[in-house]
Amino acid sequence: MTAWTTRLDSLGIVLPTPAKPVGAYVPAVRTGSYVYTSGQLPFVEGRLTAPGKVGDDVTLEQANAAARLAGLNALAAVHDLVGIDSVVRIVKVVGFVASAAGFTEQPRVLNGASELMGEIFGEAGVHARSAVGVAELPLGSSVEVEIIVEVQG
Amino acid sequence: MTAWTTRLDSLGIVLPTPAKPVGAYVPAVRTGSYVYTSGQLPFVEGRLTAPGKVGDDVTLEQANAAARLAGLNALAAVHDLVGIDSVVRIVKVVGFVASAAGFTEQPRVLNGASELMGEIFGEAGVHARSAVGVAELPLGSSVEVEIIVEVQG
Amino acid sequence: MTAWTTRLDSLGIVLPTPAKPVGAYVPAVRTGSYVYTSGQLPFVEGRLTAPGKVGDDVTLEQANAAARLAGLNALAAVHDLVGIDSVVRIVKVVGFVASAAGFTEQPRVLNGASELMGEIFGEAGVHARSAVGVAELPLGSSVEVEIIVEVQG
Repeated sequence: MTAWTTRLDSLGIVLPTPAKPVGAYVPAVRTGSYVYTSGQLPFVEGRLTAPGKVGDDVTLEQANAAARLAGLNALAAVHDLVGIDSVVRIVKVVGFVASAAGFTEQPRVLNGASELMGEIFGEAGVHARSAVGVAELPLGSSVEVEIIVEVQG
Repeated sequence: MTAWTTRLDSLGIVLPTPAKPVGAYVPAVRTGSYVYTSGQLPFVEGRLTAPGKVGDDVTLEQANAAARLAGLNALAAVHDLVGIDSVVRIVKVVGFVASAAGFTEQPRVLNGASELMGEIFGEAGVHARSAVGVAELPLGSSVEVEIIVEVQG
Repeated sequence: MTAWTTRLDSLGIVLPTPAKPVGAYVPAVRTGSYVYTSGQLPFVEGRLTAPGKVGDDVTLEQANAAARLAGLNALAAVHDLVGIDSVVRIVKVVGFVASAAGFTEQPRVLNGASELMGEIFGEAGVHARSAVGVAELPLGSSVEVEIIVEVQG
């Protein structure tokens, strides 16, 4: 086990308690050596931060911070399921950005999530990523982030 | 092998014959212990149900039913490839919802697919999920659903 | 090892050198027997081809060619990481198409990428696929393609 909890402590990063989704799905599922998370929104203590369209209601900076929060919630879902210390590497990040017409800076938005993974996990946080601009997200969220993580067997 | 076919019978659920897509792709692929399906549309006997944008042409109720149909077609693709009785668990559901401006109830739409998985597979149907609202879907479909399924070795 | 390099040569297909993305992510990651690529854009020698919305600024034919290029860049990312000869099969292709209002031919766009996989890998190139129409893509790209590939152990 790698002591990622120690690393989180030294960075002053606290993983939140994941909100339980209503219905026949869960925040994360383990299968074999992998954890797949559900799409995570930038909730902070039950409140959705920075709702709206990026490039219109929401600035790039706000969206970048929201992507970091959504990424943090994704890690919280992993932690709740298997414990963060079992993370071997972050494999994939997919990020959806609710985008105003003409907004094409989705990668800079998603860097908020990607840089969080790098800060915490270093080389083990380097991942493949897709960033996509979409019409509408659940509850009017500006970003949604899902991850695939390799964990110890 | 779990007798999911018996469960389907008792629920009165009939898996349709999957339509064969044209071109260099297929409804589902097995690799190792996993089946990945293609994005499935709510076809019923070759006819696309509930086309249009949800929140405009299509109601939430219609879209929820369409998501259930798309999920059923995804299971049909799995069944056609490996037999539904080899399902170990539903790992992931990704759903795209063609959304009118301001429609943000994508999770309630996708519950149509998620609840189908729960009805059939019980605990083995509990999955991670992402729900996203998009501009346009193939053929004007209101929903598109893809799944990742763990199957027996 | 299958001699896919020989096949590429006989087809006259040259895999480009992948552009290195800026930030805490990479063009492709290997985990176990799989390579996941990042979402790839139709860059040719650092220049984005066919930017804009398909069905408006970009024709179906141009978008189909762009999807082929994005798929080629995805294969280049795989080759750069593990060597193309280690490919066992193409498992999944996900394609996002920046779509003008009313454009619903995303599958015909993505055939550009799918047919490339078929040309190169034959039966091993037959994959599951999702094609989705979205509002905006990074840098104003008309298409973005990511793949999951099974590779030798």
